[in-house]
Amino acid sequence: MVQTLGIDLGGTYARAAVVDEAGNILAAERTALFDRTPNAVVEAVASVARGAVGACGATVHACGVGAAGQLRGDSGMVLVAPNLGWRNVPFGTMLADRLGHAVRVVNDLSAAAWGEFRAGAGKGERDLLVVFVGSGVGSAVIANGALLVGSNGLAGELGHVKVRVRNGRTCGCGEQGCLEAYAGGHNLSAQIRELVESGRAPLLAQVVGEDVAKANPSHLEQAALAGDAAARELYDFAAEALGLAVANQVTMLNPGRLILGGGVLARCPSLRERVLDGIRAHASVSSRENLGVVEAALGDDSGLIGAALLAHPA
Amino acid sequence: MVQTLGIDLGGTYARAAVVDEAGNILAAERTALFDRTPNAVVEAVASVARGAVGACGATVHACGVGAAGQLRGDSGMVLVAPNLGWRNVPFGTMLADRLGHAVRVVNDLSAAAWGEFRAGAGKGERDLLVVFVGSGVGSAVIANGALLVGSNGLAGELGHVKVRVRNGRTCGCGEQGCLEAYAGGHNLSAQIRELVESGRAPLLAQVVGEDVAKANPSHLEQAALAGDAAARELYDFAAEALGLAVANQVTMLNPGRLILGGGVLARCPSLRERVLDGIRAHASVSSRENLGVVEAALGDDSGLIGAALLAHPA
Repeated sequence: MVQTLGIDLGGTYARAAVVDEAGNILAAERTALFDRTPNAVVEAVASVARGAVGACGATVHACGVGAAGQLRGDSGMVLVAPNLGWRNVPFGTMLADRLGHAVRVVNDLSAAAWGEFRAGAGKGERDLLVVFVGSGVGSAVIANGALLVGSNGLAGELGHVKVRVRNGRTCGCGEQGCLEAYAGGHNLSAQIRELVESGRAPLLAQVVGEDVAKANPSHLEQAALAGDAAARELYDFAAEALGLAVANQVTMLNPGRLILGGGVLARCPSLRERVLDGIRAHASVSSRENLGVVEAALGDDSGLIGAALLAHPA
Repeated sequence: MVQTLGIDLGGTYARAAVVDEAGNILAAERTALFDRTPNAVVEAVASVARGAVGACGATVHACGVGAAGQLRGDSGMVLVAPNLGWRNVPFGTMLADRLGHAVRVVNDLSAAAWGEFRAGAGKGERDLLVVFVGSGVGSAVIANGALLVGSNGLAGELGHVKVRVRNGRTCGCGEQGCLEAYAGGHNLSAQIRELVESGRAPLLAQVVGEDVAKANPSHLEQAALAGDAAARELYDFAAEALGLAVANQVTMLNPGRLILGGGVLARCPSLRERVLDGIRAHASVSSRENLGVVEAALGDDSGLIGAALLAHPA
């Protein structure tokens, strides 16, 4: 059985796993990334990779990396990785030189989607839309069993479709009015803090408590459901923007299954329900006729597994 | 060289052509469809097919049909063809029985997109978004050289993404708030007639002239540009909805080339410009960095050629 290496490269940690063809993790290691310079990260990744390979005595000849960032196609070039503070880092080449075998770098959402497709909640379905609402909003598309990559490798940027065309909130990407600027956990928390500090949402302030820096989307959900009007407005906009954006992609892409995952939806069950409501209300009847909506099944391992499976020679 | 038959099945006519592997039309015939019952249409199609085959002395063993309607995957089942008044017609099977060889039925937009991809404005690019704004709004996606089909064969229904979530105009599909309900030529003309009849748009009424039944989007563009406020409002909404919807698909799908076609955009050059403005304003910077926007190159023949080329055994 062929075994490959999967790397999950986050902003603060790196994980490595040896994965078999069926998507089983045979061994895994994790390290925190204190020094985030490219050379130090390559060394750290090589070290956990060696650890995982050693732990199960495997021989691997290919490695896949899921990286939180924007990549240039299949070249292994990381254009922007905000959490690592990187711009234009040829990480794929650097890691391949260090490991001595082929490395394929894809973005973290693509890796996670591929993991779910091959070994998780997407098994058995060839047309998938995968949407994760966590600190950001990301998505990936599997079309007829192939990952939709796009001409520059940027397909799936659902978080950056525009949901407000005038006076839109500035997103982490630098543009205005992106879905992620309203519904991503990071930006939603910033909006919650602003709202608490404005004094317009007393109930929300109460739910958040003394430490405003710890405000999170779950606080917003609680306050909105308890009747705080200003919290409700913020929550409704995020819920409706998310529901409409996902519904329109269901209409456009006609997936057989939608995998909804990510920390924000996991911790805000009503928000998740609102996304489902949005699909029922706005996706075309025929596109949602046979649509199954499921939760992600592999948790934090989806990217690790998917990256490893994507490294298999075609 | 392998030659195949392409059929363009509209609501009022059928065309057949023998097409070579390079997308050249070797012979073509056309017939009006007076009797639109399925059996009569099969006979009419078989007759033009025989005519085209006879005219160039070709031998064909496969046939592709581009049909204006909603289909069930690759089964050849036409679920709804509004212009033919059909529901659940197994047209693929019926025509295959009549012709004595394989028939593949796809929707007209998919056929047109495939024609442009293989032999027209999409040549040389493997990731395409094709948007046609004619009497309806349709689109198709080519991803890494393959037609994006969707799990029920319905992918590409850009005309039915929702652009208004409350009190939306009813679309021909029966749902409310679809892009096509605002920006499709058929619905736009209906809105123009309503506006003329309301008396709120004197300049528009003047441009349209005596015969309100002949109102068309080009009249609206003229009146809007000449300063008719009510016409401007209608025109702006259509232009912005179209621009935003296309821009968001550019962000999501990251095509290398966008083919913009269809009669409404051809006859309303300013509307076409507005769509391009929308892409510049709303598509993510990185997704439009290398995006080429081109006009369709094959005109009315794209569907005929694409249908024939899609009939090639894989």
